[in-house]
Amino acid sequence: MKEYLQKCKLIFEKQLEDTLQKYKSEIQPIYDALCYAVSNGGKRIRPALCYLGAEFCGKDEEYVKDMAVGIEMIHSYSLVHDDLPCMDDDELRRGKPTVHVAFGEGMAVLVGDALLNLAFEVMLQSDDFDSNSLKAVRYIAKYAGMSGMIGGQCLDLANENNINIGIRELSEINRLKTSCLLKAALLSGAAKCGATDQELADLGAYADKLGEIFQIVDDILDRTSTEEELGKQVNQDSANGKTSVVDIFGIKEAKKYIDKLQSEALEKLAKYGSRAAKLCELCKFLSDRSN
Amino acid sequence: MKEYLQKCKLIFEKQLEDTLQKYKSEIQPIYDALCYAVSNGGKRIRPALCYLGAEFCGKDEEYVKDMAVGIEMIHSYSLVHDDLPCMDDDELRRGKPTVHVAFGEGMAVLVGDALLNLAFEVMLQSDDFDSNSLKAVRYIAKYAGMSGMIGGQCLDLANENNINIGIRELSEINRLKTSCLLKAALLSGAAKCGATDQELADLGAYADKLGEIFQIVDDILDRTSTEEELGKQVNQDSANGKTSVVDIFGIKEAKKYIDKLQSEALEKLAKYGSRAAKLCELCKFLSDRSN
Repeated sequence: MKEYLQKCKLIFEKQLEDTLQKYKSEIQPIYDALCYAVSNGGKRIRPALCYLGAEFCGKDEEYVKDMAVGIEMIHSYSLVHDDLPCMDDDELRRGKPTVHVAFGEGMAVLVGDALLNLAFEVMLQSDDFDSNSLKAVRYIAKYAGMSGMIGGQCLDLANENNINIGIRELSEINRLKTSCLLKAALLSGAAKCGATDQELADLGAYADKLGEIFQIVDDILDRTSTEEELGKQVNQDSANGKTSVVDIFGIKEAKKYIDKLQSEALEKLAKYGSRAAKLCELCKFLSDRSN
Repeated sequence: MKEYLQKCKLIFEKQLEDTLQKYKSEIQPIYDALCYAVSNGGKRIRPALCYLGAEFCGKDEEYVKDMAVGIEMIHSYSLVHDDLPCMDDDELRRGKPTVHVAFGEGMAVLVGDALLNLAFEVMLQSDDFDSNSLKAVRYIAKYAGMSGMIGGQCLDLANENNINIGIRELSEINRLKTSCLLKAALLSGAAKCGATDQELADLGAYADKLGEIFQIVDDILDRTSTEEELGKQVNQDSANGKTSVVDIFGIKEAKKYIDKLQSEALEKLAKYGSRAAKLCELCKFLSDRSN
């Protein structure tokens, strides 16, 4: 799975580079800052999920490239805005200064806006834009918005310093903040390639669990890892007054909870056999990741 | 024209209210703040331009409602982010506290993001989404982005405290920052209703001039009007270290420059006779406005 994700990352970064070249802006300052924000590596999990959605329907990475690039731009913009002093106030992202540190706060706000806008521009410009493309972009708009990812960020912000938050509220925040965009990635890839409604429902249920796992592993790593390993500041949750699943369960129980979520995720895809093999492998891989 | 714009405003605010009702989020804090941001009045010039684009092609306001709502949401988000302390740092907008003053800075960042995202969600959800709708949304994505409105905001930010800026650079900033979105409004309305390429080119050239006029009148009013008349703080350009056309030309010459731009705008539409009558009237009206 590690090699597969590495292969996806290479394919994606070529697609991203081509796209950035195509939409090159004459307004150099914002273009440079935007490229800095979106080109600084990362695991590129969302593009990989988009490709896996396509593969599930027998299509390849090329066929869903605009969706993959769009969804990763949305992920990147959310990080740029999340890192701002008035949000999480992070100075380091993947080992490099965050956008507002490198280019100033005002520019960081604009870069985030520009990335979100460009995501839709890219997804809408495809030469082969058809009714499946429309369905795919609609998933992305829905799950990235205020009833999805942004809604989760808002609840996250509203619950800073709330030490009485329970596991149900936390799960809901994680579902919105993290699962929604992973789900959008997987469903957009599958929808663009003609997945049926039943398939989309099953893939969506899988992605909900996957996202929750992903977020809890993040929270565990924030406590147990080092700045060198993660490429970002650690112990940020407590510094920002955020309660995580780890605070409620402790690390040992949190890991058991991940195992439970993993079983539920795999169960959703059991009936698809080999068509879903890589998705099952990915879920296991992400449950055990160390950065 | 004043009555016509008032009529458009009423039609638009009903369409907006229906849309907000339809996309009601269960996440109350962000939904409330988003409604606050987009429902606080304003002239609603962009929806009116969208309707005028439709009327130019023989269609009505209902036919382009998703574009009108989408473009005004984009305008609103740009104001929310523009008002932030790290940008123009404005505390008052249309006589009410700006979003970050009322809801906090972090929430203002998220509300802006949510509005931009919702704009695309709304425009893409139309039941009658067809190839003309796609063309219309593509115009909006292009002109709202980093080679359009956001690019203009970026240049604006980069030229703070640049007292040596010339009329050419200022015109370019105004074209990007203001004309682009007015153009997107007019062209999206016309494109959705099947305007030809020649018509779209002429309407676009008209909108470029209209936007420049709009911005210069704004700059004049910033110097000559009062907080009560404008519903926002005045003399903000000098407070923010911004050079405007008024600084270069003086008020008298700036008004002459507006007259020149007006003639050029009307000339672009002369051949369309009565089809473009309201657009010509609008241009004159906006040149003479006092708030």
